[in-house]
Amino acid sequence: MSTLPRIDRATVSDALYGKWKAERLEGRRIASDPRFQTIPGLPLDENRARTLEQLGWLVEEGAIQRAFPSDLGGDDNHGGNIAAFQELVFADPSMQIKSGVQWGLFGAAILHLGTRTHHEKWLPDVISLKLPGAFAMTEIGHGSDVASVATTATYDPETREFVIHTPFRGAWKEFLGNAALHGQAAVVFAQLITLGVNHGVHAFFVPIRTAKGNLKKGVGAEDDGVKGGLNGIDNGRLHFDHVRIPRENLLNRYGDVAEDGTYSSHIQSPGRRFFTMIGTLVQGRVSLDGAAANAMKGALAIAIRYGEERRQFPGPDGRDTVLLDYALHQRRLLPRLAETYAVSFAGHRLLQTFDEVFSGANDTDENREDLETLAAALKPLSTWAALDTLQEAREATGGAGYMAKNRLTGWRADLDIYATFEGDNNVLLQLVGKRLLSDYAAQFAGGDRAALARAAADQLGERVTRFGLRQIGQSIADLGQVARSVEGVRDESAQRALLADRVQAMIASIALALRDAVKDVPKAKRDAASAAAFNTQQVKLIEAARAHGELLQWEAFTEALEGFEGDTLTVMTWLRDLFGLGLIEKHASWYLVNGRLSGARVEAVTAYIDRLLGRLREHALDLVDAFDLTPELLRAEIATGIEAERQAEAQAYVDARVAEGTWPVHEKQLYQEAKAAAKAAAKAAAPRD
Amino acid sequence: MSTLPRIDRATVSDALYGKWKAERLEGRRIASDPRFQTIPGLPLDENRARTLEQLGWLVEEGAIQRAFPSDLGGDDNHGGNIAAFQELVFADPSMQIKSGVQWGLFGAAILHLGTRTHHEKWLPDVISLKLPGAFAMTEIGHGSDVASVATTATYDPETREFVIHTPFRGAWKEFLGNAALHGQAAVVFAQLITLGVNHGVHAFFVPIRTAKGNLKKGVGAEDDGVKGGLNGIDNGRLHFDHVRIPRENLLNRYGDVAEDGTYSSHIQSPGRRFFTMIGTLVQGRVSLDGAAANAMKGALAIAIRYGEERRQFPGPDGRDTVLLDYALHQRRLLPRLAETYAVSFAGHRLLQTFDEVFSGANDTDENREDLETLAAALKPLSTWAALDTLQEAREATGGAGYMAKNRLTGWRADLDIYATFEGDNNVLLQLVGKRLLSDYAAQFAGGDRAALARAAADQLGERVTRFGLRQIGQSIADLGQVARSVEGVRDESAQRALLADRVQAMIASIALALRDAVKDVPKAKRDAASAAAFNTQQVKLIEAARAHGELLQWEAFTEALEGFEGDTLTVMTWLRDLFGLGLIEKHASWYLVNGRLSGARVEAVTAYIDRLLGRLREHALDLVDAFDLTPELLRAEIATGIEAERQAEAQAYVDARVAEGTWPVHEKQLYQEAKAAAKAAAKAAAPRD
Repeated sequence: MSTLPRIDRATVSDALYGKWKAERLEGRRIASDPRFQTIPGLPLDENRARTLEQLGWLVEEGAIQRAFPSDLGGDDNHGGNIAAFQELVFADPSMQIKSGVQWGLFGAAILHLGTRTHHEKWLPDVISLKLPGAFAMTEIGHGSDVASVATTATYDPETREFVIHTPFRGAWKEFLGNAALHGQAAVVFAQLITLGVNHGVHAFFVPIRTAKGNLKKGVGAEDDGVKGGLNGIDNGRLHFDHVRIPRENLLNRYGDVAEDGTYSSHIQSPGRRFFTMIGTLVQGRVSLDGAAANAMKGALAIAIRYGEERRQFPGPDGRDTVLLDYALHQRRLLPRLAETYAVSFAGHRLLQTFDEVFSGANDTDENREDLETLAAALKPLSTWAALDTLQEAREATGGAGYMAKNRLTGWRADLDIYATFEGDNNVLLQLVGKRLLSDYAAQFAGGDRAALARAAADQLGERVTRFGLRQIGQSIADLGQVARSVEGVRDESAQRALLADRVQAMIASIALALRDAVKDVPKAKRDAASAAAFNTQQVKLIEAARAHGELLQWEAFTEALEGFEGDTLTVMTWLRDLFGLGLIEKHASWYLVNGRLSGARVEAVTAYIDRLLGRLREHALDLVDAFDLTPELLRAEIATGIEAERQAEAQAYVDARVAEGTWPVHEKQLYQEAKAAAKAAAKAAAPRD
Repeated sequence: MSTLPRIDRATVSDALYGKWKAERLEGRRIASDPRFQTIPGLPLDENRARTLEQLGWLVEEGAIQRAFPSDLGGDDNHGGNIAAFQELVFADPSMQIKSGVQWGLFGAAILHLGTRTHHEKWLPDVISLKLPGAFAMTEIGHGSDVASVATTATYDPETREFVIHTPFRGAWKEFLGNAALHGQAAVVFAQLITLGVNHGVHAFFVPIRTAKGNLKKGVGAEDDGVKGGLNGIDNGRLHFDHVRIPRENLLNRYGDVAEDGTYSSHIQSPGRRFFTMIGTLVQGRVSLDGAAANAMKGALAIAIRYGEERRQFPGPDGRDTVLLDYALHQRRLLPRLAETYAVSFAGHRLLQTFDEVFSGANDTDENREDLETLAAALKPLSTWAALDTLQEAREATGGAGYMAKNRLTGWRADLDIYATFEGDNNVLLQLVGKRLLSDYAAQFAGGDRAALARAAADQLGERVTRFGLRQIGQSIADLGQVARSVEGVRDESAQRALLADRVQAMIASIALALRDAVKDVPKAKRDAASAAAFNTQQVKLIEAARAHGELLQWEAFTEALEGFEGDTLTVMTWLRDLFGLGLIEKHASWYLVNGRLSGARVEAVTAYIDRLLGRLREHALDLVDAFDLTPELLRAEIATGIEAERQAEAQAYVDARVAEGTWPVHEKQLYQEAKAAAKAAAKAAAPRD
């Protein structure tokens, strides 16, 4: 019927698989195996036991060893490891995260914070699951603020041991997977104290249970019980009463204690040392980012397939209207589809950077810093987007979406915690904001307010770092006129300029406000004044960090367009435009208040988005089919065509009755005919004028 | 230390309890009894069995009979019944909603759609729970579109029976509480067919199981299994294979069939009859609206108490900063606190109108229509607000918020379905939008485009109906200048004008667009053109309906201010302003694009909101204490003061070590001292200029 452009599904699928397609397919193979799939409603104990069993099967399947050293049974494949892991969200998020605890946190801490002796001693048993472990970082009194943990590891030169101790209840290690039941050891983060000096947080290998599951002397554990999701995992608390471990159990890659208690480290600054150690744990964020992208794909594959079949309320042709033909339904689902692509492409960029650093291919300080900023910017956006998309998909599929068998609520509950674990989303965005501020300030080291202000009005040239603050090649003075200086707001360069300018302008304004707030304050009061000023800018700073993350997503999507041509490029460009213009529409009031766009242009953006929605509606199914999610991965009844079958059956039933003349007439019709007849009669009876 | 104004908590509490305080306290008494409280993680079967048992206890406690006729054991107290019901969300949402199915849907359908004989025959057993029942309205093929259900009830004059039949799978009754296990009868909504005419949807009393739980002949039932929440309820599907019921089982208040098959009704129009019948079911929406408000109160009582105690990251004084002192934390929680008050006060107004209609005190067609519009406008806003607030509270309490023992995730999961049951939120808002459009058009009956346009530019005088489209006492021409014509945007009249104008202007613009789209279209094609045009306006129309609901909430809050004085009035006015200005800020781009506010004024709104947040932060605890939620109702560990206790213990520990001189010095301090010393030495060694 039509000569619509059609995307080349295989090309788009490949773009979505990215560099580690083979590993992703391997992850999907696992996820397609019923042994690894969620069974909704399992009682807590059974659920936990099964999840542990699943971890054993993962080992058997050779699914978890990729990131470990090849001579210890691994593949030294860091990017591929995370890629495969991200696909396990299609199997069972509890199994996925429990495997993340075992190999991505507990095992990875030994790998990245320990040295060769530690690797040889423990990693084979970690890999084989002979040694299940917990990652004891978070304390109940200090969530995201790891530097402040209060557990102590005090060196005793007499016995050459560390004494691990929990001084008060606020220092209990909390929310730890594997802590309630299955963990036999834990990597414990504690303040390293030796010879009367606290050298800050370090990681220690601490046995906590015997192989039979009995707690070791001095170790206490409690069960966190039921959670909002991920109930296959035995989260719990740990506390230590003067537990002694050998000196060698300090994971000593970044800091060591000699037999006599002397501390040494190849990183001088205690602050930098802390951030270097913590930085090795970035893979959790990278993992969640891609798992969130996959959950979005699942949610939209379900909601859009159902929206293409489901009909509700009679249309002008008498038949019920297909949900996806409603403008509102398009507005609810298609921008989230565009966002899913943006999140996926940005995730590839993050994973690529991660692999460069962890494989050693490009392990520079600068690339590590970029990796951390990128992860801190993207993980909040993608995990929130996943929750938002899962919820919209749930509501867009009505009561059916609430049934566990249609998957959406399970993912929603399990992924809820993504927003606050592996770094609270707002805390991460604040880190990004601070990086943007320091990138900005770095350009004016020693500069005063006038220099800052001049700079803000000058052309700034190249961006500072790859993933740091962007400088667009245009002066701020020009940017005030951006809406006039580009053809419209639709084309790529206009989108880029508008998105980049917003980050830049927000950061510049925050930097100025912070500087102004302290400039006449006496030195003694400057810290307090500075903190107070920072607090007044906190909401804006986090918004700027979010805008930066959105820009990174938009850039990744735009970069991905280079891999397409022909019709595919046309459609994918519409989708990118929907993403970009959607951001501009969402932030329209900022563009209006700051004189970047006129009201007429904002209305034009909305009108163009409506046109894009109309066009993309015809490609919605292709665009979710390109996710390549088989029925074994989706496992949602409403995505199987069951609704279309039911409708065909209903239609056939009615057609047959109508054909045989047994379909009853509706009173409504008789009523309207009677009314019309009465009207005609009254008209006939009325005297002519 | 301060002379801050303080609210009078008792006065504010009373305002939040509203007219049916005694019944609410009675509902809270029930909710405080451990027998009625959720036990997280119960296996499905146990959970369902316990929930049924709880319903029996509710009967024993005299908690469910209020709305039934006094001579059948009830109290004829409609408002009080719903008020008490709304409080049960503090006990267990599964028990609450299952009781709603039994008495608010199944029982209420017999009460409102049946006549005296039905009441006498069934209601005593419904009230006593001897007869548990299902409410079989929704079909899998037709969710929100009740008029299109396909189950048939065909009258057989030979046997004087109705034959209840499910013609195809799409007509299976679906998602019905009590259907999988406990229901012994169902009120079934089916197309009434007699003498070859379909008289539209009517309700029938159909026995489905014996007292022993065996399905009756011809009745099929399946279990919906695990859901996203409310897992204490046995939702399921029902289908009927030519099930015969006596003629008298038609609930015949609005339509009846004589022995010979003749249909009669005192409502002529089949359309009006349908809406009248369906209108009796509005109480579900009223119930959810208030339950959502209560969940918001619970969520914020937990998150704000925790936010007042919890500290994170060291501040300039060296101590960790209290979460609620962070500007972002205030931005996250305080506007939602204002919204909770707005939702509560608007809910009172809805419940009052409901009581007027159902008690017969003011049961006019107009008041019924107002009730339906009000319910359709408020239920979507309050149920979405509850999900949003529960989620923000969950994230604001971090990992602790994810633990079932802290309640937030349980409420979130159970209330998720509120957004799509008892009328899908978007479908309801569309109904409101259509009402606003028809109110608008009614003013120009027979008018052409010119009349509409003139009217839009003229003063319109009084509002059309109580809860219909508002007309503000100002011309559209003036409104274009509203930002100039009022002192600022802060005062009450400016807020009202801005909020009301937005609804009015959006509706006027949609009405014009709809009229323009069909004016030159030939009559034969007008229906299709009109439907197409409606679809182009759908997103705007739903946004206008939402704006209308927000205006109703704002008005209810403003009306409630009349009950306060002194300091309480001052603080409550700030809170109302936070709500009103928050709406204006949220919709700033509309106000900017449509020339209602300048950019400078929008910035002033944001700046003033920041000031309000700073002021209200000091009252946050008082404002949640005014919810009067006892520990028995909240039952959240983190709202018990446990965090403050832990901190006091930690501080005492550190203080003691510092006092005795055993607190280790931190390497960071030594490092900084060494750096400073090196710098000083270098300076001293440098040659003088």
